[in-house]
Amino acid sequence: MKFVISKLHLTVALNNVSRAVSSRNPNPVLTGLKFELNKNGLFITGSDSDLSIVTKIPLEENEEKIIDAFSDGIVVLSSKLITEIIRKLDSQNERLEFELIDNTTVKIKNDNSEYSLTCMNADDYPSIDLTNGSNIFSVSTEELKLLIQQTSFAASDRENRPVLTGVNFKATGNRLECVATDSYRLARKVVELPTNQNFNITIPARTLNEIIRIIENEKNVEISVSDKKVIFKLKNTLIISRLISGAYPETSKLIPDTFEYELETISQNFISAIDRAQVFSVDRFNIVKLTMSPGQVQIISKSQQIGSAVENITSFRYNGENLEISFTAKYVIEAIRAIGTENISILFNGDMKPFIIKNKDDNTITQLVLPVRTY
Amino acid sequence: MKFVISKLHLTVALNNVSRAVSSRNPNPVLTGLKFELNKNGLFITGSDSDLSIVTKIPLEENEEKIIDAFSDGIVVLSSKLITEIIRKLDSQNERLEFELIDNTTVKIKNDNSEYSLTCMNADDYPSIDLTNGSNIFSVSTEELKLLIQQTSFAASDRENRPVLTGVNFKATGNRLECVATDSYRLARKVVELPTNQNFNITIPARTLNEIIRIIENEKNVEISVSDKKVIFKLKNTLIISRLISGAYPETSKLIPDTFEYELETISQNFISAIDRAQVFSVDRFNIVKLTMSPGQVQIISKSQQIGSAVENITSFRYNGENLEISFTAKYVIEAIRAIGTENISILFNGDMKPFIIKNKDDNTITQLVLPVRTY
Repeated sequence: MKFVISKLHLTVALNNVSRAVSSRNPNPVLTGLKFELNKNGLFITGSDSDLSIVTKIPLEENEEKIIDAFSDGIVVLSSKLITEIIRKLDSQNERLEFELIDNTTVKIKNDNSEYSLTCMNADDYPSIDLTNGSNIFSVSTEELKLLIQQTSFAASDRENRPVLTGVNFKATGNRLECVATDSYRLARKVVELPTNQNFNITIPARTLNEIIRIIENEKNVEISVSDKKVIFKLKNTLIISRLISGAYPETSKLIPDTFEYELETISQNFISAIDRAQVFSVDRFNIVKLTMSPGQVQIISKSQQIGSAVENITSFRYNGENLEISFTAKYVIEAIRAIGTENISILFNGDMKPFIIKNKDDNTITQLVLPVRTY
Repeated sequence: MKFVISKLHLTVALNNVSRAVSSRNPNPVLTGLKFELNKNGLFITGSDSDLSIVTKIPLEENEEKIIDAFSDGIVVLSSKLITEIIRKLDSQNERLEFELIDNTTVKIKNDNSEYSLTCMNADDYPSIDLTNGSNIFSVSTEELKLLIQQTSFAASDRENRPVLTGVNFKATGNRLECVATDSYRLARKVVELPTNQNFNITIPARTLNEIIRIIENEKNVEISVSDKKVIFKLKNTLIISRLISGAYPETSKLIPDTFEYELETISQNFISAIDRAQVFSVDRFNIVKLTMSPGQVQIISKSQQIGSAVENITSFRYNGENLEISFTAKYVIEAIRAIGTENISILFNGDMKPFIIKNKDDNTITQLVLPVRTY
C-alpha cells in the first residue's frame, strides 16, 4: 500500500471516524483505525463494535486530486497516534505520503518529518455489515438534528435498564414518533416521514449524539433500518449503530390530555430564575419549588444551613387554583431549552402529578417531568 | 449593615477576592468572604490563610455613585453562594440591596429576586496583618507579569521540598534575581530595581500565578517585603502572601559560563517538532532525543511498541562536534515558550551536562534543563 494524500481531507475524515473509537476498548484492534485503499478511494473505519463509522476519501473531487494512489492495501493503525500526529503537523505540510513496509510498519512522510507506525493485524479487525435494511427513508439534516437535540438528553445514563439509554423510534405509516425517558422525565417528538414505514427500534443515545456532530455539512441523511442495526448514510460517510434489544416501555398513556392548571411564561426568564434558585438547594438533585396563583408566580428554594431564594416571575399568564409543585431544576431547564421557543406553556394536574412543558404553536414536541415530593 | 451597590463593581471585586478562597478549607469561616462597610467604602476579604486578598469598593469614583451606604457593619458570607448568585443575575439588575437582619442573615434584593444568606460568625474570621515591611519598592505591572511568567512554571508542584514550590526573590542593591526550580530544570530572571533593596525571600508560585490574573488593569504594583510576608499593593486591592520559610538552595553555580556546543534555531519550529515527536514517547515523562551535527539537526523519538518519529529541523546554525542528548519534552517546550522570542540559542557542555536556553539579545532570562539518561 502506498499513496500520497491531502492533509486537509485526511484531517476531516479522521475527526469523524475517530469518534467511534475508544482508547480503552478491551479488543486492542478496535483502538485502531482501518485504512483500506482501492480503486474507489481510501476507506477509513473506526468502531467500538456498537457504533461504527466508515468514511470514504475519493481519489479526486471536483477535478481536484486528493489522493495519488500507487498501490492498494489494508492496514490498521493506532487511532490515537495517527490523529495526534496529523493534528500537530504544521499547516504548511499540505501532502503526506503513506507507505506500508514489510507488512508491519507504515511510514508517513512529509518534507521534514518521518514517522514509522507499527501496524495492528488487519485480519483481526471485525468485518462490519453494511447491507441495507428493509426500511429506507430520507430526512433533512436539519430535521434529524432537531429531533435528536429535543429527545436524546432525556435518555437514561444508567445501565440498569439498557433500553432507556436509547431513543425509541416508532414508525407507523408516515408518522415517526421518537421518545426518550429516564423514568423521571420524558421527551417526545413527532415528525412526518416522506414515505410509509413500519418499525419500532431503539437507537443508543450515544450514537445519536455522535451523528449530530458528523452531519453538519450535509443536506439530507438516508436512514436504513433493519432488525439489528440502523445505518445513517451521508455523502461519503456511513454511521452504523447496533440497536438496543428489548421492548421499549409503552409511554403514550403517560402523557395526559387534559390539565387543570396552566402557566404561560417567557422561557429565558423562567430558566434564569430556576438556575439562580437552585444555588440554594444543597441536596444533589437541586430541587426547587414553583408556587403559582393567578396574581403571583414564584420559584422558591430553601435550605436550613445556607439560606433561601425567592424569585418572582414577572411576565406570566396563569389559569387555575393556587398550586405548589417541586421539581428537579435540571430536568425543567433542559426540557425548556429543548423546546427552544421564546414562550412556553406548562400544564399541570396537581402537585404530585406529572406535568408537561410545550410550546402552544407546536404540537410535535412534548416534554414531561415528574414532580418531587418535598416535606 | 445596609447598603445598595452597583452589581458591576461588586462582580469585579468578587472575582478577585474569591480567588484566594478554597471551598475545601478545613477552617469553615475561610470558605466565606468578609464584607466590611465603613465610611471609606466596602472592604471584601478572601483568604486561605496563606494567601489573602482584600479589595476596596469606594463609595464613589469619578463622581459616579457606586455604593449608597445606610449603616456600617461586618459580615462573613459563603464565597461560593454569593459569587454564584451574583454571576447568575440577569444583566438588567444593575443595583443590589444588602441588609443584615438579626445579625444572622443577610438579605440581598433586587427588583424580582430576594435571597437570604445565613452569615458565618465574623468574630471567627482571622485578622490579616496589613502592616508594611521594611523594604518597599514599585515595579511596572508589565515587568512583574513577565517576571512571573518566565519563572513560576519551573517551580515544583510537589510538597516534599516546600521551598521549591516557590519563586526565590533575592535583592542586592538595585539587582533583583528571581529563580524557580523543581530540581530538574531552572528558570532565572534578573531585573533592575528603582531603588536599592536587600532581601532574600521565597514567594509561593501559587500566589504569583493569582497575581498575574488580578493585576491586569493596573500600571504599577507596590511591593512591600518583610520577614514573614509580602504585600502586593494595587489601586484598590491588597494581595498578602505568607513567605515560604527555609533557605532557598544556592543555584548560581549551577549555571555554566562556558559551553562547547551551541544550537541556534527558530523557537516555533523547534517546539512543534518536539511536540510531534513526543507523541511516540510512551513513558510518562515524554523523553525525546536531539541529535546535532554541523549539517543536520533532528528530534528523534522511538518506542518498541508503537513506532518512531524523526523530525528534521530545517533552519538552524550549529557550532560544535556531533552531539546526542535526551530530555523531557515538556521542560524544553515550556522553557522556550517562557523566553518568548522568535529565535533561541541552546548551549550544551555534553550529553549528561545541564544545558541552557536563552535569547542571544537578552541576558536577563536564562532557562536551564537537565538531560535524561537513555539506554
